[in-house]
Amino acid sequence: MRALVFLVPGFEEIEATTIIDVLRRCDIDVTVAGQSDLLVEGGHGMKIAADQLIMEVDVSDFDAVICPGGGLGTENLRKNQRVLDIVKSAFESNKLVAAICAAPAVLSDAGLLKGKRCTIYPGMESELEKGEGIPIEDIVVVDGNIITSRGPATALRFALQIAEKLMGKQVAEEAGNRMLVPIAIK
Amino acid sequence: MRALVFLVPGFEEIEATTIIDVLRRCDIDVTVAGQSDLLVEGGHGMKIAADQLIMEVDVSDFDAVICPGGGLGTENLRKNQRVLDIVKSAFESNKLVAAICAAPAVLSDAGLLKGKRCTIYPGMESELEKGEGIPIEDIVVVDGNIITSRGPATALRFALQIAEKLMGKQVAEEAGNRMLVPIAIK
Repeated sequence: MRALVFLVPGFEEIEATTIIDVLRRCDIDVTVAGQSDLLVEGGHGMKIAADQLIMEVDVSDFDAVICPGGGLGTENLRKNQRVLDIVKSAFESNKLVAAICAAPAVLSDAGLLKGKRCTIYPGMESELEKGEGIPIEDIVVVDGNIITSRGPATALRFALQIAEKLMGKQVAEEAGNRMLVPIAIK
Repeated sequence: MRALVFLVPGFEEIEATTIIDVLRRCDIDVTVAGQSDLLVEGGHGMKIAADQLIMEVDVSDFDAVICPGGGLGTENLRKNQRVLDIVKSAFESNKLVAAICAAPAVLSDAGLLKGKRCTIYPGMESELEKGEGIPIEDIVVVDGNIITSRGPATALRFALQIAEKLMGKQVAEEAGNRMLVPIAIK
């Protein structure tokens, strides 16, 4: 299984890192796609290396496309037409599309949330409603091939849910156990 | 307040990122010190930029020194005499010294855990006992100026505990609220 994770300036570092780390622990081949540089600065000054540029992405290479959040990071994703095209194309090919924190707004903009149960960072629910999504208060919400979640503290649950969808419950559970999820998180 | 975070090859990405992100959210000035390069590869292939090299660190600049874990990352910290000298010097100056996952073994090697309550990744308790530490099963353990914790899923609690010690309960609590800790983590 192959997953694409976007990395644009202002991305939320815990969210991006947790997604990439957890999926790789589950033997998913993760490609990190940077906006215009191969070293991308997050919302809290951390610079993380990307593997390729978003403009070079061929969506047919991937089984899942994932948007980390962050305030500025989400703005940058929303302004990037290539990102909107990639998530739309992935969704229409029935690939997994996932977003966390403010970034479910990207899926809303791309028109993927019509009639879908979904969630977002608290207070941003109107962004989901603009795209005719149905806001839900759960930590992680799965509806068909869309997975959404709410913020840094929910990133581990979100990443494990993506892993479960791609690799099965046992693989995700074993990775969660090694990361001490059962002793640390509800 | 100023904190130093070590970044050596094989570091656990979620742990390192969570520490740096949370402390910066709490307005702590964080310096990331790399082993021999300013771009350091973690245990799951993520490359993260450091601000300076460990050999250049002046411990008197910092109020706290923090060791992220990871299997190979901890081995590399333990083999680095400069790291052992820095944590020892920080401890003796009554600065905060903290380690998570396998990395409390570094504090044990440096002789900081004698008679101290502390914790480590499950199954590694003998590493604490070698340094005459007292293993405790809690998610985060504070004893004087030593804070220890257990693994990726406990990193957020660990980082918030460090922030609380440096900046006070209110600052840490507000940062935790914005990261959605109350809805996501016990």
